[in-house]
Amino acid sequence: MSIEAVLNRIDENLPAATERLMTLLRIPSISTDPAYKADCEKAADWLVAELTDLGFKAEKRPAPGHPFVVARHEGPGPNLLFYGHYDVQPVDPLTLWDRPPFEPAIEQTANGEVIRGRGSSDDKGQLMTFLEACRAWKEVNGTLPGNLTIFFEGEEESGSPSLIPFMHANHDELACDLALICDTSMVSPGVPSIAGQLRGMLKEEFTLHGPRIDLHSGHYGGPALNPLRELSKIIASFHDDTGRVAIEGFYDGVHEVTAEQKRQWANCGFDEKAYLGHAGMTVAHGEQGYSALEQQWARPTLEINGLWGGYQGTGSKTVIPAEAHVKITCRLVGDMDPADLRRKLRAHVEARLPVDARVSWDTDLDGAPAAVMDTSRPEYEAARQALSDEWNREAVIVGMGGSIPIAYYFKSILGMDALLVGYANDDDAIHSPNEKYDVKSFHKGARSWARILDRIAG
Amino acid sequence: MSIEAVLNRIDENLPAATERLMTLLRIPSISTDPAYKADCEKAADWLVAELTDLGFKAEKRPAPGHPFVVARHEGPGPNLLFYGHYDVQPVDPLTLWDRPPFEPAIEQTANGEVIRGRGSSDDKGQLMTFLEACRAWKEVNGTLPGNLTIFFEGEEESGSPSLIPFMHANHDELACDLALICDTSMVSPGVPSIAGQLRGMLKEEFTLHGPRIDLHSGHYGGPALNPLRELSKIIASFHDDTGRVAIEGFYDGVHEVTAEQKRQWANCGFDEKAYLGHAGMTVAHGEQGYSALEQQWARPTLEINGLWGGYQGTGSKTVIPAEAHVKITCRLVGDMDPADLRRKLRAHVEARLPVDARVSWDTDLDGAPAAVMDTSRPEYEAARQALSDEWNREAVIVGMGGSIPIAYYFKSILGMDALLVGYANDDDAIHSPNEKYDVKSFHKGARSWARILDRIAG
Repeated sequence: MSIEAVLNRIDENLPAATERLMTLLRIPSISTDPAYKADCEKAADWLVAELTDLGFKAEKRPAPGHPFVVARHEGPGPNLLFYGHYDVQPVDPLTLWDRPPFEPAIEQTANGEVIRGRGSSDDKGQLMTFLEACRAWKEVNGTLPGNLTIFFEGEEESGSPSLIPFMHANHDELACDLALICDTSMVSPGVPSIAGQLRGMLKEEFTLHGPRIDLHSGHYGGPALNPLRELSKIIASFHDDTGRVAIEGFYDGVHEVTAEQKRQWANCGFDEKAYLGHAGMTVAHGEQGYSALEQQWARPTLEINGLWGGYQGTGSKTVIPAEAHVKITCRLVGDMDPADLRRKLRAHVEARLPVDARVSWDTDLDGAPAAVMDTSRPEYEAARQALSDEWNREAVIVGMGGSIPIAYYFKSILGMDALLVGYANDDDAIHSPNEKYDVKSFHKGARSWARILDRIAG
Repeated sequence: MSIEAVLNRIDENLPAATERLMTLLRIPSISTDPAYKADCEKAADWLVAELTDLGFKAEKRPAPGHPFVVARHEGPGPNLLFYGHYDVQPVDPLTLWDRPPFEPAIEQTANGEVIRGRGSSDDKGQLMTFLEACRAWKEVNGTLPGNLTIFFEGEEESGSPSLIPFMHANHDELACDLALICDTSMVSPGVPSIAGQLRGMLKEEFTLHGPRIDLHSGHYGGPALNPLRELSKIIASFHDDTGRVAIEGFYDGVHEVTAEQKRQWANCGFDEKAYLGHAGMTVAHGEQGYSALEQQWARPTLEINGLWGGYQGTGSKTVIPAEAHVKITCRLVGDMDPADLRRKLRAHVEARLPVDARVSWDTDLDGAPAAVMDTSRPEYEAARQALSDEWNREAVIVGMGGSIPIAYYFKSILGMDALLVGYANDDDAIHSPNEKYDVKSFHKGARSWARILDRIAG
């Protein structure tokens, strides 16, 4: 049977496929907020039912946090594991959404139809591209393609705390020949992209404690240590005037961008002006001496993700608060070691505390090194050809600024290489209000997986 | 009739007087939050009823915000105006309160009995000392003392937006011979204090806008301008390494502390170690070269009262937020001009904005200069003697770190000097969780006003 029949079936299925995705998007499976625990269970149950319907032997597997979904189809050829995550980011600030985030809809935009809603791009829409490829394949060929394991998690947006123990406990079941991961974006619209390197991540959060209690800024303003001011000084000390992180030893393990990478990336279709413009920026604000693409793909960062203390309500309050709080993430590249970096960051902060101040660290936050793929595997070339056929444009091996720790753990725990192919676009507003996924991404994504499976499945 | 009879009556009335105060404390008259508008009305109504019961001709006077209370008693002698405010500060963070803030109670502490609850010290307990002095006077003498005007406002904790228009519109009614203000504290427990100078205040709030939307820290971390980082840098630039405010021209109009002030203040009973220790501090953190008392009373400040942006919820969110927010107050001394200072502060901030960032200023926030009293008036000496008699300790003329703009406006609009006497203590936790007022302050405060009225009323 020719691949064309499967592709045609994907085209015919699109309306029904979109409705299936909408059903999944209506489940508010926010993993980081315990209030949505039951919704995460519901999303896992829905996927088990969907996979069972497709002919997989599918199970929900309990975890201390949110459950995993594991499904198997025995077949010929290499054992391919497909990974995605069904959990989504929080939706605040809710006021900036143009529609309720969990009431998805198709919208017409200047760039074509989009599916609007939280999780449409990250990662429910992406993972459904693979299931829709499987569905069409089954409908045309009477069986699922090759030898497949499906592995979905529900804690990707909250640091995957259950993932490592689960992989150790289920090593033999999950250690396949190659992982396929659909959680990345295209370098620019219409340019099929395979991720060759991903940044790692270190998460930190601390509270700076100053006065014993909140103080009146008249009675104590002047003599009092102000935690908001002290925290601001510490944050300001994290970078030098060139945008470089000023923590001692921060860049240990970083690999400079090679001439070959610069050459490849110059021709990958990345539109720096459009990328910056989408975010309302006219220049790249990172380390001087690096392009926006290099700053995003190949350079480490230290970002403040949350900062708060004192009075935030209506009007004014003359308070000097007892505490100030900050959430930090660092993006890691090359061989940077998260545990070592955590020590350096904490030492930097603690060396800058004034007398009468102390700091308490959140001890529940994780980290993962960067992941650098073995792009010499033959499946990489097969996927490049499949993607080039579908998108009528040569596929490129790119870097990725985001962190997908799973790729690192697949290699370190399961000894499994990964092939990362995704169809998201940079304007999808993932993690932001009004997240969307292009219908074109959803449709051609499913077609792309069918073509890839046609080349690498048994 | 001797003053002793009035003082004895105050002693006898204490249990009933405390219950009257508790009734007022149960009304959550938070002026800065529109949700409590009806409660502010209720507090004003309660005071009108109380004043009417005392024999005053009392009225609630409407205002665009919360109403004023004005009451008159015609009598002999100079027309004395007594001022207080019935509104209170917000109560957050509520979790730090040991009891519901608007369910007041008497508590036994190591330092004696206290009345615990929001507003107990600032200012409901203080204003009730005057009404209880009037009540005992009336009960003993059959009439209220002298020639009295009572003037209560309900917007003191939210910048008194209606105050200036109201004073202009009711100039003749309010322009008395002298104002008595009870909204200050004693320099140390048991040391009766008259405030000779009060710091002014300038309020500011701004939002720093960076990216057009919230961004993903993987896709944009590095190239993106991070408003939390930029705001922290601006805040860090407000002070130099010696604790001095680094805004150009900030100290214009400041008067250096005189040798005579230093001499007086050295003997005013201020316990620097206890003052700092109460706040959990071991050193004064303000401008180098000034004592804690000078930093509090005679030096201007710039304090951060609120700071926020990005994700504050449970867990981690890899976001670069579009905005960051800060609330600022400056305390002013000498001849510092709030309008001029506002221009300088804004210029300082705007000169430090990176490309692609902009700032929007809250335009609703007010300012008031410092107030320096005419302590040569004979009522000051009379009050000093009355207070010294009551507290068995020489009363002192002190500075005050807090801002009571009313004293400035009484002079500038009504041409009226003010005598500021208060019985609060520095450990009253005003504006903080677990606010209290010593029963001793409440009791001896009423006795003090009776003695002062005995000397200066007709």
